Amino acid sequence: MEKSILIIQCKDQKGIVASVSDFLFKYNGNILEVDQHVDEEIGVFFMRAAWEQESFGLEKEDIRPVFENEVANKFQMKFDLYFNFPKPRMAIFVSKLSHCLFDILSRYYAGQFDVEIPLVISNHLDLKRVVTAFRIPFYHLPVDKFNKAAVENEQIALLKEYKVDFVVLARYMQILSGSFIQEFPNQVINIHHSFLPAFVGAKPYHAAYERGVKIIGATAHYVTEELDAGPIIEQEVARVRHHNSPSDLVQIGQDVEKVVLSKAIKYHLERKVLAYGNKTVIFY
Amino acid sequence: MEKSILIIQCKDQKGIVASVSDFLFKYNGNILEVDQHVDEEIGVFFMRAAWEQESFGLEKEDIRPVFENEVANKFQMKFDLYFNFPKPRMAIFVSKLSHCLFDILSRYYAGQFDVEIPLVISNHLDLKRVVTAFRIPFYHLPVDKFNKAAVENEQIALLKEYKVDFVVLARYMQILSGSFIQEFPNQVINIHHSFLPAFVGAKPYHAAYERGVKIIGATAHYVTEELDAGPIIEQEVARVRHHNSPSDLVQIGQDVEKVVLSKAIKYHLERKVLAYGNKTVIFY
Amino acid sequence: MEKSILIIQCKDQKGIVASVSDFLFKYNGNILEVDQHVDEEIGVFFMRAAWEQESFGLEKEDIRPVFENEVANKFQMKFDLYFNFPKPRMAIFVSKLSHCLFDILSRYYAGQFDVEIPLVISNHLDLKRVVTAFRIPFYHLPVDKFNKAAVENEQIALLKEYKVDFVVLARYMQILSGSFIQEFPNQVINIHHSFLPAFVGAKPYHAAYERGVKIIGATAHYVTEELDAGPIIEQEVARVRHHNSPSDLVQIGQDVEKVVLSKAIKYHLERKVLAYGNKTVIFY
Amino acid sequence: MEKSILIIQCKDQKGIVASVSDFLFKYNGNILEVDQHVDEEIGVFFMRAAWEQESFGLEKEDIRPVFENEVANKFQMKFDLYFNFPKPRMAIFVSKLSHCLFDILSRYYAGQFDVEIPLVISNHLDLKRVVTAFRIPFYHLPVDKFNKAAVENEQIALLKEYKVDFVVLARYMQILSGSFIQEFPNQVINIHHSFLPAFVGAKPYHAAYERGVKIIGATAHYVTEELDAGPIIEQEVARVRHHNSPSDLVQIGQDVEKVVLSKAIKYHLERKVLAYGNKTVIFY
Repeated sequence: MEKSILIIQCKDQKGIVASVSDFLFKYNGNILEVDQHVDEEIGVFFMRAAWEQESFGLEKEDIRPVFENEVANKFQMKFDLYFNFPKPRMAIFVSKLSHCLFDILSRYYAGQFDVEIPLVISNHLDLKRVVTAFRIPFYHLPVDKFNKAAVENEQIALLKEYKVDFVVLARYMQILSGSFIQEFPNQVINIHHSFLPAFVGAKPYHAAYERGVKIIGATAHYVTEELDAGPIIEQEVARVRHHNSPSDLVQIGQDVEKVVLSKAIKYHLERKVLAYGNKTVIFY
Repeated sequence: MEKSILIIQCKDQKGIVASVSDFLFKYNGNILEVDQHVDEEIGVFFMRAAWEQESFGLEKEDIRPVFENEVANKFQMKFDLYFNFPKPRMAIFVSKLSHCLFDILSRYYAGQFDVEIPLVISNHLDLKRVVTAFRIPFYHLPVDKFNKAAVENEQIALLKEYKVDFVVLARYMQILSGSFIQEFPNQVINIHHSFLPAFVGAKPYHAAYERGVKIIGATAHYVTEELDAGPIIEQEVARVRHHNSPSDLVQIGQDVEKVVLSKAIKYHLERKVLAYGNKTVIFY
Repeated sequence: MEKSILIIQCKDQKGIVASVSDFLFKYNGNILEVDQHVDEEIGVFFMRAAWEQESFGLEKEDIRPVFENEVANKFQMKFDLYFNFPKPRMAIFVSKLSHCLFDILSRYYAGQFDVEIPLVISNHLDLKRVVTAFRIPFYHLPVDKFNKAAVENEQIALLKEYKVDFVVLARYMQILSGSFIQEFPNQVINIHHSFLPAFVGAKPYHAAYERGVKIIGATAHYVTEELDAGPIIEQEVARVRHHNSPSDLVQIGQDVEKVVLSKAIKYHLERKVLAYGNKTVIFY
Repeated sequence: MEKSILIIQCKDQKGIVASVSDFLFKYNGNILEVDQHVDEEIGVFFMRAAWEQESFGLEKEDIRPVFENEVANKFQMKFDLYFNFPKPRMAIFVSKLSHCLFDILSRYYAGQFDVEIPLVISNHLDLKRVVTAFRIPFYHLPVDKFNKAAVENEQIALLKEYKVDFVVLARYMQILSGSFIQEFPNQVINIHHSFLPAFVGAKPYHAAYERGVKIIGATAHYVTEELDAGPIIEQEVARVRHHNSPSDLVQIGQDVEKVVLSKAIKYHLERKVLAYGNKTVIFY
């Protein structure tokens, strides 16, 4: 089904829900999902509405100007419109670790993700064969301390060439520069292998082992310039015990990582994530 | 804060959300929560809206007729109105097991439940001392196979005398008759000590032990005339292992029971549970 | 590391742990794991011990007769010995659903399973390309109501030809006959897409939807002749809500299925599962 | 049943399990539970064994010297012996928050904890009435910045007078001094209202809200001189969403706190917790 999705963010005021509902009703919208949220602390209103496009009374290209004129301007709304057709385009960055990549490919194959994957980019060749079996182009761009900026430029060029909408770092073991991130604000999803804000930085499973925690976790977040500090999309945890070695923790954690990352992708794809400041509203 | 809550159930039609939103906006409603759901299989629309009563443009007693006239009749809605002041009145039925009762009293003491508990009714005296320490009247009505109908009449008389809105069976070890239940449709909440529909009936933990399950659970549901078959409000589970004896399962399960029952009470109190047929919509 | 694993089952008696420990100490065993359990209801003792084979004072082929003579006969023990080298050999049966298969292949690729996968057998061709990318032979044996017995004979022949130790039914949509199962007692692992014993049989997610449960689950079990009634190895659950359609339940459930099945494979591979009657001891 | 529990900690060496098993067998021990663990990183062996005392071949007072002579000296073991009769004696410290206290009292009442509670100490009077209903003496020792050391001396005197074995801080809002803690090494259990090491210090739920985490937690740990840094006994988590306010987080978190603290008490009581350095082995 062709679906249109409207995402609104504005100062909280009375009458917003009524105005948006009236707009959708006026143009004969068959509403599929509506969710609202008010952040009381900062007085900001958030809304997400999805409706069937086929039976809607406005053509896709007319929705924006009409909504602006009839609703958005009055409330000084920031809003976005998304359509699930054509499908959004997602690039995956990987290094050598396969668990997150294979989980994404598995869901892609099974039709769980309403997405195109036009390419996978890796600094290693290891995962090429399996990616290729899923009929996805694989680009091998090795990174070292000298060529990092140049490689990022190549990556950005590829992302533009393939008209990529967002990027998933599926345990890509390189830190992206601020200038890369600015090209894709809140459009780069990373999976960090700890329950943030605990164990920021490298080797979080070893740090968790040293601290003797009984539960480990993983965190999917939008990448911002400050390392491991971007808006959190999803987190999940798993129980560990005293007999689990650091390498057990790595393995137990990988199961959590792949689940968390795939959930975050799903929320992002369905435009259920509204990021603001360092936080997210997730309308699941 | 004084809150008004509107619960709607009707045939799914276009324009419902717009009409209700317009109504609330027209009378200056400061909306606190709005949730909608459509059961696509049966074409039924559900909605819950909560707003601040103090600043609302209609007096409590006027809301019903005005809403009926301006909105409900047009869509042939069934609707209910609730106000959190005065507080709803909940009776608790217990036997000898204390874990669910104490958990409820603990939350009541801490102000987690916006409720009055005008009385506790038990067929045993064991729990009287603690109930009394919370300054709640305790009625001891012993039940045997000869006096059951008479005791139920006494119970119903007490519930009416104390103007009780709903009843919680906190591991009350007696089966209530159909005529009792008809007095309180979807207003009697029971906790069943299994993950329904597995292990219906007596001794579910022993049955779970015999089957060798790895997870046990508990189910809070509205009581209907068919045993353990009413609409499920909440369920939760806990992991068990081969070394857990049936009595371990009882103990592990009690932790689940009390959590599940208290969640169900909370949802019910906040009018977040919309029961229909054998199911519930829970707007949490 | 080459590891030897001893699994013991016998009538509970004093001195068993001392005798086994003395035996391992006598032959200089570097113990890696020891676990015991007594089922008090039936008076049966279970034990699992693992040690480094390389530094052990008995050759692999001598352990059985020496242990029999020095320990097992005295206590009338049933026991098994396993070695992780050469690796156990696992066959996978699939139909069209990919999620369990891909999860297994992903773990196999990442070295999480200490196993050989000499072949995958399917009644459909859909999954051939991906299986082949992992360099595993894929056998296409279509099944219809006329050729079922003949196909099972082919399957058994292939399993024997490839010296398969155990079989995983990764959402294989065919019911195996009693004679097949008798060839591999407690060596055929199935994943059932419900939280057994709830929702035995076909279409469990639809049954769960109809009953209005708040939690769904999956169960990995050894296959016995009675459908969905074999010893449970592992179970896991996921929360669902009123807005989840039956097809949402299928998707949410698939995530549970793949995790549960992979855990069961891991326990089985490490010989941590001791099945008896309709139950299992799991020494994780 | 009268149970004896032996806890061992020593350098990892071959033959320990055999020696301890032989000892228990020699004196006719009916073993109830045995668990071992080796911390490979530091080469330390841990063991816990429990047996029926009544049928054991050594009187309680003879076990220590005989075991020392026959086993412990040879392996240079540190060991402890515990008996569940007379019951261990636990003091509870509280302030105004009731949820952890009531949960402990509820389990105590239900016979889940094999413990005596000879007294509750509080710096406020609020919880006196309910504590008294459970027939437990309640001591009101108000604390201010001037009398803290004097009050601690009173507390210690009370703990000694009542022969208290260990202390539970059930959301006691005072920081104990180093000299108090040294009186009860690894015998003071605290519940911290965050998933440590995230959100150390005051107001962790508010900090969690600010960071926008999707999961909150609680941690039970032994108190050491460094705040919130002692060995972790148990942790648990709960999911939160964008619509949860800081006070919602407090309430959701309290459910986690009480469960975690009660589990930690149970493990401690059954001597299943072996603390070493900053870690714990938990033989559950």
